[in-house]
Amino acid sequence: MKQEFIKFGRRLRVGMVGGGFDSVIGETHRLAFQADGHWDLVAGAFSINPVVCEETAKGLFIADDRNYTDYREMALKEAARADGIDAVVIATPPGIHNAVAETFLDAGIHVICEKPLTRTVEEARQLEQAVARSGKIFVLTHCYSGFPMVRQARELVASGALGKIRLIDMEFAGGSPGVSEEPEDLSKRHWRFQPQNGKEMILGEVGSHAYHMVRYITGMTPTRLSAFMQTFVPRREVYDNAFLNFEFADGAAGRLWSSYVATGTQHGLGFRIYGDKAAIEWHEEDGEYLRFRPLREPETMLRAGQDGTSNFVGYSARFRPGHTEGYILAFANIYREAALAIIQAETGGDSTQYTSGLPSVSDGLAGVLMIDAAAASANAGGTWVDIG
Amino acid sequence: MKQEFIKFGRRLRVGMVGGGFDSVIGETHRLAFQADGHWDLVAGAFSINPVVCEETAKGLFIADDRNYTDYREMALKEAARADGIDAVVIATPPGIHNAVAETFLDAGIHVICEKPLTRTVEEARQLEQAVARSGKIFVLTHCYSGFPMVRQARELVASGALGKIRLIDMEFAGGSPGVSEEPEDLSKRHWRFQPQNGKEMILGEVGSHAYHMVRYITGMTPTRLSAFMQTFVPRREVYDNAFLNFEFADGAAGRLWSSYVATGTQHGLGFRIYGDKAAIEWHEEDGEYLRFRPLREPETMLRAGQDGTSNFVGYSARFRPGHTEGYILAFANIYREAALAIIQAETGGDSTQYTSGLPSVSDGLAGVLMIDAAAASANAGGTWVDIG
Amino acid sequence: MKQEFIKFGRRLRVGMVGGGFDSVIGETHRLAFQADGHWDLVAGAFSINPVVCEETAKGLFIADDRNYTDYREMALKEAARADGIDAVVIATPPGIHNAVAETFLDAGIHVICEKPLTRTVEEARQLEQAVARSGKIFVLTHCYSGFPMVRQARELVASGALGKIRLIDMEFAGGSPGVSEEPEDLSKRHWRFQPQNGKEMILGEVGSHAYHMVRYITGMTPTRLSAFMQTFVPRREVYDNAFLNFEFADGAAGRLWSSYVATGTQHGLGFRIYGDKAAIEWHEEDGEYLRFRPLREPETMLRAGQDGTSNFVGYSARFRPGHTEGYILAFANIYREAALAIIQAETGGDSTQYTSGLPSVSDGLAGVLMIDAAAASANAGGTWVDIG
Amino acid sequence: MKQEFIKFGRRLRVGMVGGGFDSVIGETHRLAFQADGHWDLVAGAFSINPVVCEETAKGLFIADDRNYTDYREMALKEAARADGIDAVVIATPPGIHNAVAETFLDAGIHVICEKPLTRTVEEARQLEQAVARSGKIFVLTHCYSGFPMVRQARELVASGALGKIRLIDMEFAGGSPGVSEEPEDLSKRHWRFQPQNGKEMILGEVGSHAYHMVRYITGMTPTRLSAFMQTFVPRREVYDNAFLNFEFADGAAGRLWSSYVATGTQHGLGFRIYGDKAAIEWHEEDGEYLRFRPLREPETMLRAGQDGTSNFVGYSARFRPGHTEGYILAFANIYREAALAIIQAETGGDSTQYTSGLPSVSDGLAGVLMIDAAAASANAGGTWVDIG
Repeated sequence: MKQEFIKFGRRLRVGMVGGGFDSVIGETHRLAFQADGHWDLVAGAFSINPVVCEETAKGLFIADDRNYTDYREMALKEAARADGIDAVVIATPPGIHNAVAETFLDAGIHVICEKPLTRTVEEARQLEQAVARSGKIFVLTHCYSGFPMVRQARELVASGALGKIRLIDMEFAGGSPGVSEEPEDLSKRHWRFQPQNGKEMILGEVGSHAYHMVRYITGMTPTRLSAFMQTFVPRREVYDNAFLNFEFADGAAGRLWSSYVATGTQHGLGFRIYGDKAAIEWHEEDGEYLRFRPLREPETMLRAGQDGTSNFVGYSARFRPGHTEGYILAFANIYREAALAIIQAETGGDSTQYTSGLPSVSDGLAGVLMIDAAAASANAGGTWVDIG
Repeated sequence: MKQEFIKFGRRLRVGMVGGGFDSVIGETHRLAFQADGHWDLVAGAFSINPVVCEETAKGLFIADDRNYTDYREMALKEAARADGIDAVVIATPPGIHNAVAETFLDAGIHVICEKPLTRTVEEARQLEQAVARSGKIFVLTHCYSGFPMVRQARELVASGALGKIRLIDMEFAGGSPGVSEEPEDLSKRHWRFQPQNGKEMILGEVGSHAYHMVRYITGMTPTRLSAFMQTFVPRREVYDNAFLNFEFADGAAGRLWSSYVATGTQHGLGFRIYGDKAAIEWHEEDGEYLRFRPLREPETMLRAGQDGTSNFVGYSARFRPGHTEGYILAFANIYREAALAIIQAETGGDSTQYTSGLPSVSDGLAGVLMIDAAAASANAGGTWVDIG
Repeated sequence: MKQEFIKFGRRLRVGMVGGGFDSVIGETHRLAFQADGHWDLVAGAFSINPVVCEETAKGLFIADDRNYTDYREMALKEAARADGIDAVVIATPPGIHNAVAETFLDAGIHVICEKPLTRTVEEARQLEQAVARSGKIFVLTHCYSGFPMVRQARELVASGALGKIRLIDMEFAGGSPGVSEEPEDLSKRHWRFQPQNGKEMILGEVGSHAYHMVRYITGMTPTRLSAFMQTFVPRREVYDNAFLNFEFADGAAGRLWSSYVATGTQHGLGFRIYGDKAAIEWHEEDGEYLRFRPLREPETMLRAGQDGTSNFVGYSARFRPGHTEGYILAFANIYREAALAIIQAETGGDSTQYTSGLPSVSDGLAGVLMIDAAAASANAGGTWVDIG
Repeated sequence: MKQEFIKFGRRLRVGMVGGGFDSVIGETHRLAFQADGHWDLVAGAFSINPVVCEETAKGLFIADDRNYTDYREMALKEAARADGIDAVVIATPPGIHNAVAETFLDAGIHVICEKPLTRTVEEARQLEQAVARSGKIFVLTHCYSGFPMVRQARELVASGALGKIRLIDMEFAGGSPGVSEEPEDLSKRHWRFQPQNGKEMILGEVGSHAYHMVRYITGMTPTRLSAFMQTFVPRREVYDNAFLNFEFADGAAGRLWSSYVATGTQHGLGFRIYGDKAAIEWHEEDGEYLRFRPLREPETMLRAGQDGTSNFVGYSARFRPGHTEGYILAFANIYREAALAIIQAETGGDSTQYTSGLPSVSDGLAGVLMIDAAAASANAGGTWVDIG
């Protein structure tokens, strides 16, 4: 940590599109980028509702001339300012990710974007091209890959400690009050439950996080899937539960469960990965530990900073073992590395040392391809469908 | 417990077929039926190997004339003795369950039989008829239904506390050294890994326990399934992993995972069941607790003997909350109730008050039908197949 | 386990003094000695109430002529029979342990006795002499030393894996409804709450178990103690909470907490022991695991049967890791080893191979000495008092 | 949360004394005050070492003219600036807390100060007077009182849900590598292990947090204590373990364990509090849950945001249940409320609505009085000593 202390030559300026005071995700991003002190929030188009924009900007001490009601105007004006934003955070529903991201990339502004990347494969491919064309940093906030113990899991798999991977069991299945019921007034549905945003949005939401985690930890992408999806909540018009099975090219098998109806489960993200030598298990709600189970030997409870964890994992935790880091400092890791990547990019350095571990536009495309295949499988009664 | 203290007018005499000293399951049954003191082991045909018979009989203090090497002889001679056995425990591989059980039933001897019921649906149907014809008690030792908290789960579902059941996630997936590798000398394979005993024996073994538990707790039997099965261990010739998906008539959805390659998982039996009002979760390795999660409210840790658990659940635990009961006392519950049922049957009483909660020959048939459907689905590339 | 299978040349005959159907502890002992099938219960003086004797004997299938109402008569008659009992289980309140035990020892009958050994130091010393004089086996049922993971703890300390022991934190502090309140009708108090049985009986009850565990695991006996004891429950006349501090000769420090008012704790036995290299932690309610925490390295969850646990620990568990063994099979270990010791003693063999690990009359004396010192300290306002 | 969104009329400016880049605690405070975005760090005298000052100031983007090497100069100059700091964070060793705090209070600057308040009772009383005299906000960073579930515990006790409190068992006992050994080079000892900072500094460090938590949750301050303290680590010259017993005026009894030699425990802060109706248990390492155990009923796992938790507890958690908040967001609660209190104080509002729940200078004095009594008791061989 001390080693890193002076690496940041300057604080970065950031703006937000979406994320107004009526949004949970906006507050989440702010906590994550503010904690380490590397980002100043100086501009925003926080909502399509001007009142929300106004109140949010005021509450966040945004200067009046940088409180925008139109993201296009924001991109243009910020790009023109000497003290314009270095990066934009896109915290809108996914339907406009593509348009917003392209606008800022084209204006020469780095992008940090919520998942799922886009609504369609076509949009995702376009965005992948836009990122490549721009040369700008693009980070997709699959924030759970910032947990030290998720990173430890990735390193363990890469090191061969698990042996050959056989089974991957992944889930992001919760059922808190907010998602396990439809509101009395259907017009007040969260956008994720609006049918026009896609019947299979559950896979874009919680599913894409879980799918990214499979790929992040194992480095393996499945080749085929079979989907078994349901809608349980009365008056709901989109899927609220999805059981997927996966095949991998090397014979490994996997499952992914996404749900909004796992009643009483508060968060519900977790994985179990089994190799022929050992297995690992992790759950976000108990996320400071990674359980490591070598065949024949006792289970061990790995924790960042202990002997045997890498510098990267140790650095991803800010305290010595025992101080609970939680979700926000995990997310802050994504922002810290994004900041370092942008500074490298802007000073002619090697940004890939930081972006190589960060969720990318290609990861986003992979997620959208999975959703596309799952929809095809579900529509065909659960047949096996190639991914991508 | 005191109430029950004098209910047993006499101790029952029991014999075993299979379960010699080289068998784990034999010792398990003996611990379970001996603990409460209602059963005397007085006869056995413990093995097809006469040396094992001899040593086992000697170690168990069996009289010489009741140490049999042929189960047919045992059935005949025991039936003819005034002090002959009341019941036989069948602890052989499943291939001869049918023949052994019929022999003892026909001799007028009650049967307590290991799972899976039989190797084939045809055998299972025949055995179902043999039981009906005999009028004898037949108990299938799905022993995990003896756990107080599994019984509590059943009562909670029946009471409506979970609301309408939506999702059932069941697993019996372990990977201890004994099952996650093939022996050097393939001739020393445990019978469950011998291809002639069925490529899908994993579903007969751990899978049938898990499937029984679904049906025991929820009272629901799925109508269709889709199977995704693999063989991972080198040189293994049977499936060692099975992912099943289930559909229920009322729209509920389920999964069942059976595995011998869940490396490092010691036991691996557990369930999570989600209704629209609440969910429950249980794992055998932490089996004294049933986690109950009502929507919006805190999780509670239910335990036998606390306010709110029934007399039956309280009675299924022998101590006040806090003394760990473990697997053997759960199994002993099955034997205690089997003893009570047999005593009722022999004294003209109502044995159904005890058998109604015990795994039956019909439950065994249901398990074999599930295995049959899973084999059909797997052979057809995972298509959905009707059960039974 | 197979190795042990034929070691028992014969079943042992056992009788009970106390432990009638109205007693929890009697049922506990029976479950423990019956499970493995090495003991036949054939005689008893189950109560001072003849009706309880009669009903208990009937329920347990005891022959009429071996249902005694006087333990002295029982000792004499059983000693005179060719098929008399090999051993007696004493499950009475502690006030008569001394008299009962001496009677049976003098009659040449081995003794298995509940804790605390006696009410006074003087009685304990007398009983120690009586045992020595008799040459018979005497086992004190500090049953928790039968848990495989408690034995693992002892082996770890002895192996030096913890380094030099510094801190020992032991507790047996529960507060279930039965002990955390006085009954409406004080005449219905359990004997442990009757003032005539000693104001500090809490230390004889739960405290003596915890104290034995300290000594069993570490091999260390404290030299001095300081006691801080309270009575919380209205109308209670004995202590219901005790906080003790201990000094050990080598500078180690310890605490022991005994309580009946730890509201809502179901069982409450557990320990944490810290050396300069590593620490261990165990709780009966999660008793299948021993947590091992080496400095700098991750915590590991030790379990019987895994690589690194000894044969003795593996043998103390009857199943491969994962099947929960629970309290009764732990207690059954004490009875199994007592049986082996008695068979050795009666056949001229070396019984110390079994008794060396079993709680002895000297362990019982050590416990009574601790209680005596604690009473002295509490009476003197918590000053430090030498033990023994 | 949304309700609070616009309450902050302005961001506050803060400076630090101590907390340079070579300090863990400095980074901790920065994460805590930066996360919510209400504080700007604009000045500092980060070290007594000018090189550390320089590097820290540069790394934190502090303007050159606000990088001080003398805290007195800092207080004077900041007080004179129109844009001077609103508050100072004191993150030095406790020996100079008194001097630094008085200097800033006298300069009209609010103070947020690390624990323990001071080294001596006399200093603490002086500081209490200085705070009263100044009329400024003074917050002592007993940061653990920011955890939502610690606040829930306080509310439960106040509501009477536990009934009359009987037993309080508190501990902050860790043993990570950094504290469980002395360095090779004794001159590199952390100040907390330097004898000149007090032989009983363990009570000032971890002990004062635990003691504050007792008082914060229960509202009860013990009247007497008995101390049993040791030094275990070779070459260490201060106590590294302390066992305290407490008496409360109403008959409740308590224990407090502070340790640096609880080998392998990572953090080690936790409590168990028992009333006559229910008990609660909490551990920082599993800090999202508060275990609630009503007599006779199942344990429940309380979590912020569920039905039955208050608005204040819900507000103290930033996310819906399930997202792990961790240590920093708990600490951030202290800073958020300090900011609100300061804004109220500066705008003539009622700051007590915020300070009433925050650790105060009087809480600091209470802690120093406890340490003083413990030292007296330990010096007198563990006799009971009045507190304060």
